[in-house]
Amino acid sequence: MLGKVVIVGTGLIGGSFALALKRAGAVREVVGMERAPDAAARALALGIADSITASPQAAMNGADLVLLAAPVAQTARILETLLPYLEPGTVLTDAGSTKADVAATARAVLGERARQFVPGHPIAGRETNGPDAALADLYQGKKTVITPLPENAPGDVGLVAAAWRLCGAIIHTLTPEQHDGVFAAVSHLPHLLAYALVDDIARKPHADLLFQYAASGFRDFTRIAGSSPEMWRDISLANRDALLTELDAYLAQLTALRARLAAHDGPALEAIYTNAQRARRAWSEAIETAEPPVPASASTKQESP
Amino acid sequence: MLGKVVIVGTGLIGGSFALALKRAGAVREVVGMERAPDAAARALALGIADSITASPQAAMNGADLVLLAAPVAQTARILETLLPYLEPGTVLTDAGSTKADVAATARAVLGERARQFVPGHPIAGRETNGPDAALADLYQGKKTVITPLPENAPGDVGLVAAAWRLCGAIIHTLTPEQHDGVFAAVSHLPHLLAYALVDDIARKPHADLLFQYAASGFRDFTRIAGSSPEMWRDISLANRDALLTELDAYLAQLTALRARLAAHDGPALEAIYTNAQRARRAWSEAIETAEPPVPASASTKQESP
Repeated sequence: MLGKVVIVGTGLIGGSFALALKRAGAVREVVGMERAPDAAARALALGIADSITASPQAAMNGADLVLLAAPVAQTARILETLLPYLEPGTVLTDAGSTKADVAATARAVLGERARQFVPGHPIAGRETNGPDAALADLYQGKKTVITPLPENAPGDVGLVAAAWRLCGAIIHTLTPEQHDGVFAAVSHLPHLLAYALVDDIARKPHADLLFQYAASGFRDFTRIAGSSPEMWRDISLANRDALLTELDAYLAQLTALRARLAAHDGPALEAIYTNAQRARRAWSEAIETAEPPVPASASTKQESP
Repeated sequence: MLGKVVIVGTGLIGGSFALALKRAGAVREVVGMERAPDAAARALALGIADSITASPQAAMNGADLVLLAAPVAQTARILETLLPYLEPGTVLTDAGSTKADVAATARAVLGERARQFVPGHPIAGRETNGPDAALADLYQGKKTVITPLPENAPGDVGLVAAAWRLCGAIIHTLTPEQHDGVFAAVSHLPHLLAYALVDDIARKPHADLLFQYAASGFRDFTRIAGSSPEMWRDISLANRDALLTELDAYLAQLTALRARLAAHDGPALEAIYTNAQRARRAWSEAIETAEPPVPASASTKQESP
């Protein structure tokens, strides 16, 4: 049972965290910090927060856990605002899509108090945002990756893990660098590739003709190119090094595949396609066992990056 | 009203064509040519064909329309078998995913009788194959691209278009070369990119770790990598030149994007992502107006390549 939880940003991510803890009867009081007046009013109306405050002093007074759920680019500013009122017993965490940069920011702003900051990343989301998109079961059965810093106290790491477990999440632990390498490969690179393909087609003189014949394979392949350009610009830059590593490996793979295609090497093409089909089937079967497919009403849903 | 229609290959594509014509009351007799005994028996049992014959002479006798719906690699062999019995009033067509190679094959095998061959490509399909997958409404509201040869008689082109219209399809007309360029861009290249990504990840030493964190964005992006490796090997080779052109344009695009990422050029990344998001939204809205989204039960469906 948590006493006071502070949510910085009461939108989809922070709001769902608060609603889940409340539904579990696991929190006494949720205080929201939210700069958008409309979002603040909706967070109160929806029962996400018991109160909203603009005062970091009031928010941090006696807080057990603080979740940063605002855009990652605001992390430094928010931590600077909270630091003067950070009590020794308070644990800070976040929900950002990249972790090495957040860890570096926490150390730069908080100094030795960074030991109170346990970085995290819930792998769940929706296409819509804001308090009205928040769901008490958003994290149910989904992964939350925690990337503890060496200086974190085990008890503080345990508190963050316990809070996410109360939201229904399955806890995975990686280092910030492992996290960023993994998500560069399976999330950030696919986004970049999808954006690049649609932009490439859209700039061709006969783009209208091409789009006319794009069908369901194209729709699924490029769905992630419908994501927020600002957010993905920030993620691309925040995870630049890991993303460049993955992009270079992929460019080498494509260049090799091009040579085989140019050489009319059917067996080599078939071997690559077959290996991909086999690996994807094995993945798909494993993931559907662990996380049953979403119902149709959520078929346009999008995980958190 | 068609008299006698011959379906060479009584699986998903040919079977759905026959069922649609029958439901429309638009055909007197459907004769199937099918080499797989199980498929032949199912095609009869399901009412796809009124009879099955192994004799090209019996099949071609008095035929108005012959649809080649076997794997594209068999096109030459099938045309060689049919040619001796091809009557002057019979029109041939096909349903292959590439068209310039089919046109070349038709001319090579049929010579001047290629004027009786009108190449076509219905843009519809399912993940399952065979007679049991055939649906009378598979082509309803979907596009069929017809790529007439200069030597085709207008009446023969009109007959093929009319038959597809009776199946509920919307007729589009392109040259074989236009067709292949368009599908290289919006279908064949995305398949190659998805296969390449999954193969690339699967070959990494920490592939198991990576796949563990792949989520719904990855699932949709790579869905087409679950397609038949043999079929896509054949399509890649059949449309090699157009596919290489598109692949080279994409490699240039990715290389430029890489340079911008390496240079930390946020505005350039955002401009590319924004253009892609805008173009995809416009496409998505246009396509959903023209072709409402498939219901959940068909959410794993796959268009014909």
